[in-house]
Amino acid sequence: MNRIVTISREFGSGGREIGKRLADELGFAYYDREIITEIAKKVGMSEEYINHISEKGVTPYAFQFAKSFVMYSNLQSSQTDILVAETKILKEIAKKGDCVIVGRGANHILKDYNPMNLFVYADMKSKINRCRMKREDEKMTDKELEKEIMQIDKNRKNYHRIISNLEWGDKNAYHLCINTSGIEIKTMIAPLANYIENWFRRI
Amino acid sequence: MNRIVTISREFGSGGREIGKRLADELGFAYYDREIITEIAKKVGMSEEYINHISEKGVTPYAFQFAKSFVMYSNLQSSQTDILVAETKILKEIAKKGDCVIVGRGANHILKDYNPMNLFVYADMKSKINRCRMKREDEKMTDKELEKEIMQIDKNRKNYHRIISNLEWGDKNAYHLCINTSGIEIKTMIAPLANYIENWFRRI
Repeated sequence: MNRIVTISREFGSGGREIGKRLADELGFAYYDREIITEIAKKVGMSEEYINHISEKGVTPYAFQFAKSFVMYSNLQSSQTDILVAETKILKEIAKKGDCVIVGRGANHILKDYNPMNLFVYADMKSKINRCRMKREDEKMTDKELEKEIMQIDKNRKNYHRIISNLEWGDKNAYHLCINTSGIEIKTMIAPLANYIENWFRRI
Repeated sequence: MNRIVTISREFGSGGREIGKRLADELGFAYYDREIITEIAKKVGMSEEYINHISEKGVTPYAFQFAKSFVMYSNLQSSQTDILVAETKILKEIAKKGDCVIVGRGANHILKDYNPMNLFVYADMKSKINRCRMKREDEKMTDKELEKEIMQIDKNRKNYHRIISNLEWGDKNAYHLCINTSGIEIKTMIAPLANYIENWFRRI
C-alpha cells in the first residue's frame, strides 16, 4: 500500500512548509492547492467559489446567512458536488504513489488507506510572526491578524464537521501533533521524516 | 540552561517506556518513581499515602467523600505539604543537569526552566493491549481494564487542575504529542531523540 501522509494545520503554524519540506525529504509527491484546481475542472466551478464553499462549510447554520432558501439549496448542492469530486480526486492521488497531502480533510476521507495523520499547531504569537514574514507589505494590526487567523481556523473546524465525527484538531484523530512555536521548521524535517519512515515500517 | 524533557501520558500509552528509552538514547538522567520516594522522605509520609493523595487530587468535590470535616482538612493540608515538597524536589532536579521527568505535572511546575513537554497517548485498544502485556497474570476483563484506565486518567486530570489552568492532555500545553497506537516504541526512539536535540538547539 502507498504511504500517505496527511497534514492538517492551524493557519500560520507552518503546516504547508512542513508538508513541502517533508515531501522533498521523503521523495514523496506533494499535493496542496492543485487539489482545488482538479476539483474546479471536475465540477465546472471557479477555484475561488470552491474555496469559498469549502472554507465556510455549509452547515445548517449557514441558512441564517443565505439570502433565500434557493440560495441555501444551491450552496448545499454545490457543496455536495465538491465533496464528491474531492473524494474521487483524493482517492486517485492515494492510488498513484507515496504522497504528502495538505488540508482538504484527507485524513478522514482517505482513512481506508491507513494514512499517517499529522496536526501542526502553534501559539498565537508564533502564528502572527509567521504570517507577518509572509506578507511584509500588509498593514494589519496584530489584533486584526489574530482575528483573521481565528476566523480561518473556525472555518476549517466547520468544514471538518461535515465530513467527520471527530473534532478538527482533536489529537486523537492524529498520529503526531507538532507544535511549531518558536522553532525553525527546516531544522526539524530530518527527524520528522525519519519518524514517519519508521511509522510506516510498523505494518 | 539544562535540557529538561517532561513526559505526561495516558495510562497504558507507553509514556514511561518512551521516557526511559529517550533518557538512555540522549544520555540524560531519568526521574519517575524516585520523585515520590524523595517527597516521602521530605514530608514524612508513606509513598502509598502520597500516591493516594496525588492521584485522587483533593478538589472541593473530595469533601463529599471525606468522612468528616477534620479528615477533609487533613487531606488538604497533606496535599499542600506534598505540593511544596514536590516543587522543591523538581527544581533541585532541574538544576542538576539534563533530564527526562515522567509525570508529576513537571511540565507546569518547571515552566520557568523552559522544558520540552511531550504528551503520549493512544487509542483504548492499544492501551488495553499494553496493560495486558505487563500484567499477564491478571484476570480482568477488557471492560474492567478499560474502566481502570479511564479512572486513572481522570485522577491525573484532576491532579493537574490543582496546579495548572491548562487542561491535562490539551495539546497546546505540549511541544509534541505522540500517538503510540499500534507502534513499537523502541523503533521510534532514535528519530524522537533527534527531534528533541534539534528542538533544544533552537534557543
